[in-house]
Amino acid sequence: MSNSDPKESVVIGVDVGGTKIATALVDLRGNILRETRHPTDVSNPQATLDGIAQAIDHIISSSGFARADIVGIGLGIPGLVDPVNGIGIASVNLNWRNVPVKAELERRLSFPCAIENDVKAAALGEARYGAGRGMKNLIYMTIGTGIAAAFVLDNEIYSGSKGMAGEVGHAIIERDGPLCKCGGHGCLEALAAGPAIAARAGDKLHSGRRSILSQLPIDSLTAEDVFHAAAQQDELALEAVKEAGYYLAFAIQFLALAYDPQVVVLGGGVPQAGEVFLHPVCQSLERFAAENWVFGELYHPDFVQVTKLGTDIGVLGAAALAAPTH
Amino acid sequence: MSNSDPKESVVIGVDVGGTKIATALVDLRGNILRETRHPTDVSNPQATLDGIAQAIDHIISSSGFARADIVGIGLGIPGLVDPVNGIGIASVNLNWRNVPVKAELERRLSFPCAIENDVKAAALGEARYGAGRGMKNLIYMTIGTGIAAAFVLDNEIYSGSKGMAGEVGHAIIERDGPLCKCGGHGCLEALAAGPAIAARAGDKLHSGRRSILSQLPIDSLTAEDVFHAAAQQDELALEAVKEAGYYLAFAIQFLALAYDPQVVVLGGGVPQAGEVFLHPVCQSLERFAAENWVFGELYHPDFVQVTKLGTDIGVLGAAALAAPTH
Repeated sequence: MSNSDPKESVVIGVDVGGTKIATALVDLRGNILRETRHPTDVSNPQATLDGIAQAIDHIISSSGFARADIVGIGLGIPGLVDPVNGIGIASVNLNWRNVPVKAELERRLSFPCAIENDVKAAALGEARYGAGRGMKNLIYMTIGTGIAAAFVLDNEIYSGSKGMAGEVGHAIIERDGPLCKCGGHGCLEALAAGPAIAARAGDKLHSGRRSILSQLPIDSLTAEDVFHAAAQQDELALEAVKEAGYYLAFAIQFLALAYDPQVVVLGGGVPQAGEVFLHPVCQSLERFAAENWVFGELYHPDFVQVTKLGTDIGVLGAAALAAPTH
Repeated sequence: MSNSDPKESVVIGVDVGGTKIATALVDLRGNILRETRHPTDVSNPQATLDGIAQAIDHIISSSGFARADIVGIGLGIPGLVDPVNGIGIASVNLNWRNVPVKAELERRLSFPCAIENDVKAAALGEARYGAGRGMKNLIYMTIGTGIAAAFVLDNEIYSGSKGMAGEVGHAIIERDGPLCKCGGHGCLEALAAGPAIAARAGDKLHSGRRSILSQLPIDSLTAEDVFHAAAQQDELALEAVKEAGYYLAFAIQFLALAYDPQVVVLGGGVPQAGEVFLHPVCQSLERFAAENWVFGELYHPDFVQVTKLGTDIGVLGAAALAAPTH
């Protein structure tokens, strides 16, 4: 086997999370050949790096691939990352500040390693292996506890000046809106992320309205509960989902007019709800497009999609960082 | 004289407007050595192109520069432009549809010609010669009768998939806001462009409030009138300017969090009002930055600037298209 035959070359993608390290052996067409999960040791950066290196060594040795078949290793890391110098600048979940990830792993593994913020890596994964395959401009948004976007522009990840491009979870969307954990009011995250969807339903329940959700303790409601009720046509839940969907659509139309992408792909926990989540978002977007001809020029029925890569987006995005482009 | 000595090389920048063609001979440091203006003949595309070619011939022959000193010609064109194929796709002001501008001018002039949308060219002009000199990520916004943005990202003009990146004048900013000429409601343009500033003041006058502006016919009020009154501390005018400034700030914070630029430069007719225009915009931005720590990470006192290139931004942006990058 030789590196020069792309059919027999593979890359390794590592999704470094605060609780687990997901590692996958991926071929150059984006097929996952093998995947492992290990708990993350966040006691100190050296221990975390040791754990990552062990996970990689383990997947290689158990795979039957020769070291020469491995083209490279890509790592998606939460928080602020300097991909050029290979530094993990700040990551709350990993308890990292200015960790020379690339140098430390290359020393341990003797493979070229590429690192990137995990959301930015996911955007590249979508562009290479997902809904944006063959497209050069794509927006990826992850919607879960928080909201962030990442951009592949002219086939490359766009990072911005300080690596902060895509922090649209903290863009103010509604004047005097609900308080966000960043200190601002009316940020997108405070209006449409998972906890905001649950809070919307909770507020409606507090006003005494009837709902399937009345059976559940209001204070521990989750977005999943709300989607579940909405899927059963519960009116209160449908309303909460529709309101959050409007704000997401609002952010999407703004980003679309700013970036003129071919597709907007939604990932993270919230979009996993599927159609019950996506439908109200698209309804609002269709209304905008019908009314406003400029946005209408950009919008089409497949413009916004939920990622089909599911939870594999993490390792596939990381793998895309290391995969050669042809 | 030879092209290999950059001190003696020049480029020609042409700002093609619906009423006039501004042509400038520009050195590679962005100094305008000579500038001419000719009326635009919009009777048909061939006549317009003939006029452009004559303006270029004229400035060269009257300048004393040899043809060999001219590195290239850049043209900023209103409307939708395909810079790769050199086509003016659609321009209402010029009455153009799918005009092969580059090929036609290169045939007439025997110089390499580069064309781009005028707002995108202006963004490049700011990045090369203006407030963004030495910066790799910059947002340029033009605010006049309409509003549009353009982006230099990683040192290059970013166009988007359909050349529509930056059409943020038609991003919806306020739910159920005023009707925009695109058919939408609450677009940025309908809230904060020149006519919207005049309309805000007009609405307040209609309600019978006192103002310096009461002396003027309400229906022909301009943004300039409003800024003039605001500069004299007229309360009604100050309010109108502050409201428009809030919406501009709203759009700027969203774009800043999406793009993470080093600077946002404002050009076009409205910002020419200077401090009376800029101050309320920055006040709103400072409030956002103080409240929201994520935006606070990006914002600094020089983050938003009015272009210092004035009306020269048109020819300088066009010249930047043709200037070699070092």
